[in-house]
Amino acid sequence: MANESSANESFSIGVDIGGTKIAIASVDSQGKMHSHKIYPTQVERGSEAIIKSLAENIREICNEMKVAPEAVGVGLAGQISEKSGIVHFAPNLNWTQVHFGELLQNELQLPVKLINDVRAATWAEWKYGAGMGQNDLVCLFIGTGIGGGIVSDGRLLTGSSNCAGELGHMTIALNGLRCTCGNLGCLEAFAGGWAVARQAQESTKDNQFLLRLSEGQKINARHIVEAALQGDPLSNQILNLATDALIAGCTTIVNGLNPSRLIIGGGFGHAIPGLLPRLQEGVRLSALIAAQTALEIIPAQLKNDAGVIGAANYARS
Amino acid sequence: MANESSANESFSIGVDIGGTKIAIASVDSQGKMHSHKIYPTQVERGSEAIIKSLAENIREICNEMKVAPEAVGVGLAGQISEKSGIVHFAPNLNWTQVHFGELLQNELQLPVKLINDVRAATWAEWKYGAGMGQNDLVCLFIGTGIGGGIVSDGRLLTGSSNCAGELGHMTIALNGLRCTCGNLGCLEAFAGGWAVARQAQESTKDNQFLLRLSEGQKINARHIVEAALQGDPLSNQILNLATDALIAGCTTIVNGLNPSRLIIGGGFGHAIPGLLPRLQEGVRLSALIAAQTALEIIPAQLKNDAGVIGAANYARS
Repeated sequence: MANESSANESFSIGVDIGGTKIAIASVDSQGKMHSHKIYPTQVERGSEAIIKSLAENIREICNEMKVAPEAVGVGLAGQISEKSGIVHFAPNLNWTQVHFGELLQNELQLPVKLINDVRAATWAEWKYGAGMGQNDLVCLFIGTGIGGGIVSDGRLLTGSSNCAGELGHMTIALNGLRCTCGNLGCLEAFAGGWAVARQAQESTKDNQFLLRLSEGQKINARHIVEAALQGDPLSNQILNLATDALIAGCTTIVNGLNPSRLIIGGGFGHAIPGLLPRLQEGVRLSALIAAQTALEIIPAQLKNDAGVIGAANYARS
Repeated sequence: MANESSANESFSIGVDIGGTKIAIASVDSQGKMHSHKIYPTQVERGSEAIIKSLAENIREICNEMKVAPEAVGVGLAGQISEKSGIVHFAPNLNWTQVHFGELLQNELQLPVKLINDVRAATWAEWKYGAGMGQNDLVCLFIGTGIGGGIVSDGRLLTGSSNCAGELGHMTIALNGLRCTCGNLGCLEAFAGGWAVARQAQESTKDNQFLLRLSEGQKINARHIVEAALQGDPLSNQILNLATDALIAGCTTIVNGLNPSRLIIGGGFGHAIPGLLPRLQEGVRLSALIAAQTALEIIPAQLKNDAGVIGAANYARS
């Protein structure tokens, strides 16, 4: 699609590095993607090889554009330092203390900016998606895990150690289900894809619905959604609990942060049957009236592209 | 103490209007209180009489100063609009749609700025108290109710309808105790003074400790603290539950907002035996390690004066 670009348009490159695949896109100042590429991460190659091949792929995309990009923005999951460009710890990449920004910048001779992947997606929804024009919004991405991003008074919050927005780890149930983080009762331990799958795996020995659907595979969150849609009581019970947990978490968000938009994203969140209207109704009944005067709870708009679009636009901010 | 003021020093007036008493103080640019006055609110007088007598009392304090104040800041609980100076709803004053800012400004011929009372106290702790010099802090005030204030990236958050910081109404227990706000499982319903008292009242029919201590009065939170200190198992159980709820709430705050200071204030919070070290240890074990790298959990410093100091300083910000 590079031929759509006009000579006057300026671009930046957005990158989203996940544990299984890497997405790269050239994005214009209107948040529109032009060239786009996705390829396997192959974590086992190690950081140096991944960065070298990333640079090559970025160069390839740049060659398709008529103008050089203004900057490169890279979103990834983990503890990163935006200032130094260092990835302190990225568990799904098996990286510790990787001087990512410096290495990629040396390869490309372009400014490189790192950002947490969930915050990149939040940035994209804010600038071009479901949160356009708002000063106070929260994005809640419900996937295998649950992450969030907070924009308050027109600024994307980072926190004191670049860690703000870990909304999957709000405690919504005193002494509740154990989370992978070690805590009890986190939102994610009730409503993350992994947690929903765990509940089914633990109680499904004689559940014919799920055993048939999963065809001998380990039961995952998709099987549970499918079984619930087909009327399986256990699966419906698990998803109802996940929904109640999400209502509780969203109530905490609305009362604590008073956003005008609460944006619900993430693959698993979109798959839970009827989640959005139930969240809207549940929060309406549970949250403080004063905190709801400007509130809308709506779905994310940019879906899988939010990461690259956000990283690209953030890099030139 | 007015004679301590120097001719060069500039002042503002801080006011804290509560349901039972009104506090006024002249405060210098260093956050130091000079003249100070407290008198009963007498809610039954109505807003007009309260504002007129407030203006007289402010004038009296101004007369003690060598220079005219720069501004007047007024903190109160309720739904207010800072811009218009209108108090939309203040339940403990029985006010609806009071044009407070305009009325007081007309009386005094001085700029008047309204602020939520909890946010005023947060502002004071940030500028002159336990949060001095920090960019990311959260104050949690544990009194009869529980309120909070959030400073993130160097700004006091207000939210989309001036309602941010209702941290007493985070849901920490799915389907938990009923809160006065109507929701189930709010932090305040476990750890607010009113909620602790309610638990004791509901289960104390044959508790000799509490019946003796309360001497026929309705049991309140102070009685429970006293009984717990004297070894009463029921009271200790109630306060342990409150402490567990506060650990859960603080974990949500730390993971969601990543502050470098979590400041614990409020009369009841200070009275709960051993609360601070238990919160520090509990959050250390429950919160994400990455969210704790810069975290300190410490007590509020300004106690009862935080409201007037914060309102005064906020008025000239």
